[in-house]
Amino acid sequence: MKIICDKNLLNFAVQTVQKAVATKTPMPILTGIYITTKNNQVELEATDYEIGITCTIDAQIIENGSIVISGKYLQEMVRRLPGETVNIETNQEDKTILITSGTAQFNLLSLPSEEFPVIQRLKTENKILVKDNILRELIKKTIFACATDESRPIFTGGLMETRANDIRLIATNTHRLAFKKNEIALQSKKLQIIIPSKILQEVAKLLTSDVPIDVEITWTQNQVAFSFDGVYILSRLIEGQFPDYNKVIPNDFSTEITVDKQLFLAAVERVALLSRDGDYNIIKFLFKDESIMITSNNPEIGKACEIIPGNISGKELEIAFNAKYITDILKNLDSDIISISLNTSLSPGCIKPIDDETYIYVITPVRIN
Amino acid sequence: MKIICDKNLLNFAVQTVQKAVATKTPMPILTGIYITTKNNQVELEATDYEIGITCTIDAQIIENGSIVISGKYLQEMVRRLPGETVNIETNQEDKTILITSGTAQFNLLSLPSEEFPVIQRLKTENKILVKDNILRELIKKTIFACATDESRPIFTGGLMETRANDIRLIATNTHRLAFKKNEIALQSKKLQIIIPSKILQEVAKLLTSDVPIDVEITWTQNQVAFSFDGVYILSRLIEGQFPDYNKVIPNDFSTEITVDKQLFLAAVERVALLSRDGDYNIIKFLFKDESIMITSNNPEIGKACEIIPGNISGKELEIAFNAKYITDILKNLDSDIISISLNTSLSPGCIKPIDDETYIYVITPVRIN
Repeated sequence: MKIICDKNLLNFAVQTVQKAVATKTPMPILTGIYITTKNNQVELEATDYEIGITCTIDAQIIENGSIVISGKYLQEMVRRLPGETVNIETNQEDKTILITSGTAQFNLLSLPSEEFPVIQRLKTENKILVKDNILRELIKKTIFACATDESRPIFTGGLMETRANDIRLIATNTHRLAFKKNEIALQSKKLQIIIPSKILQEVAKLLTSDVPIDVEITWTQNQVAFSFDGVYILSRLIEGQFPDYNKVIPNDFSTEITVDKQLFLAAVERVALLSRDGDYNIIKFLFKDESIMITSNNPEIGKACEIIPGNISGKELEIAFNAKYITDILKNLDSDIISISLNTSLSPGCIKPIDDETYIYVITPVRIN
Repeated sequence: MKIICDKNLLNFAVQTVQKAVATKTPMPILTGIYITTKNNQVELEATDYEIGITCTIDAQIIENGSIVISGKYLQEMVRRLPGETVNIETNQEDKTILITSGTAQFNLLSLPSEEFPVIQRLKTENKILVKDNILRELIKKTIFACATDESRPIFTGGLMETRANDIRLIATNTHRLAFKKNEIALQSKKLQIIIPSKILQEVAKLLTSDVPIDVEITWTQNQVAFSFDGVYILSRLIEGQFPDYNKVIPNDFSTEITVDKQLFLAAVERVALLSRDGDYNIIKFLFKDESIMITSNNPEIGKACEIIPGNISGKELEIAFNAKYITDILKNLDSDIISISLNTSLSPGCIKPIDDETYIYVITPVRIN
């Protein structure tokens, strides 16, 4: 193989696929980045069998071929190269790979390219198109609600679904649930898959375009792929039955509160300082008259209490929540004023931006005596 | 005790003494910040017996007294308080401390203030004055050369010395030595002490004034104190005999090189990528004609080679160094062009800014075959 490519373009491709390079693995080949020539372009690939990423860039191909180079070294080297272009060529004699750019010259040992598990693109008719800014927002506003505990795999992923003309993403750890939907053009295929949250986070990080671009999502029974701008991300799906979120989202409430988001968030964060080291990070709320009293009590440290104004209609209510579940959603709400809807101190409540039905957060209270 | 103080001032004082709050200690009292009223001001103190910091601020004293509060919670709480002023008062009944600011109210358990090892200021005639920007520069330009290995304590500190009208700081780990001096006004007392590098780093971080201020340094046989702007930092000294640095700095050289610092640093960092994981991080230099060839070789990864232009006078020379010892000094040199002075491949060399005799770095080569 012998190629010449733009340094910044190569750097972009290496950083893009880097996320899929395995770090701890009994298979050394997975620590490498596979580089191959294809139709007058160069394709970089990495996979750790959880996620596979391919990035295709333009290059001048002088001789076709395929090589595998240590991902760790390639990544650090490429971003530091002094020249504007980079030459990569195989030294047939000693099987090393010569990389030159400006005054710098590296001779790297190659990994056996025939051992690399080349990423196979999904062959399927299941296909929808979503704008990248919509996909990024869906992910950012829901995935934090996933479980981190691997014991129940279904809750470590987000449920992605389409209806006639919307796409929605739902995440839950059974104590809280985040639901977000966005309108999209009418799609002929109905999507309903559970995608690992780690993969969705990587997808969101790679969706960085300034002007909206189309992301093609394709899927089979057990895999999903996101394709945009020369980038192809392949992931396994999580199998199993996601809970029926429609049954989880309550509809009728006896106490409705609206409150300034910044004021509420700052007060919750302060009061939570003392509860944080406790087992459940519990803080109490008393919604009464035109005020919200927020309290915490940690026998080893002390007590905190804060009273802020809020607009409360319906029954007065005392209720306790895990403080982190409250601050997580507040940080993701764009609206200045938020709405909190509750029933009893033992039944789930809803937190939403006011006047926006596309984003709903359900939170289960903690039982207190 | 009952005091009212400005929130930002209190926050400054808490963050300042925070560096001395013990985190891992069998003595719970050392995890606290001691707050006491004194001459119509409030003094905050923390100590872990390695370093002690006192910060004095103005406040309205309503009732004198002394308290100790958990440093960790006080620090996080104060910077988040909603009001512009903070009230702190002891609740005599239950021995808790009530902190109120705006809508927030905290009731913290207090630690027994009579157990706190109050910091005693040094009583001594040994005293010099140094501008804070000079002290900060001395520390920044030398302390990185200290040993991190605690087995030879003398090398974990910097030697601070005064001569007739200069102050100097010298640090070495026996493989490299950094020397920096600055002119100061004639001092009547001669200083010669070894200060732990960790303390010097904290001192440098706290010296953040925009306009130069005087720092008073006082010392006894086994302690040193830095005093400025209401802040008092007390540290133990390291005992022992520091090596005679004048004998370490070579004077005659057979090869003299001048080179562009950025060009040299970037090339060294690239070539060092491959040597970094080796035992000694060794890279080789060949100074010959008008060029510098920098190479590294890692049998498990590959080779790197870079040739950059340099101005070389005297004998050609091949020599090897620990790459980190080279990059450390290059990052601290302000000059665009640097000078490297060498003798043989086995004798120490010097790296300096050109035309500046106040900053000298000595580095011992690594033996190669």
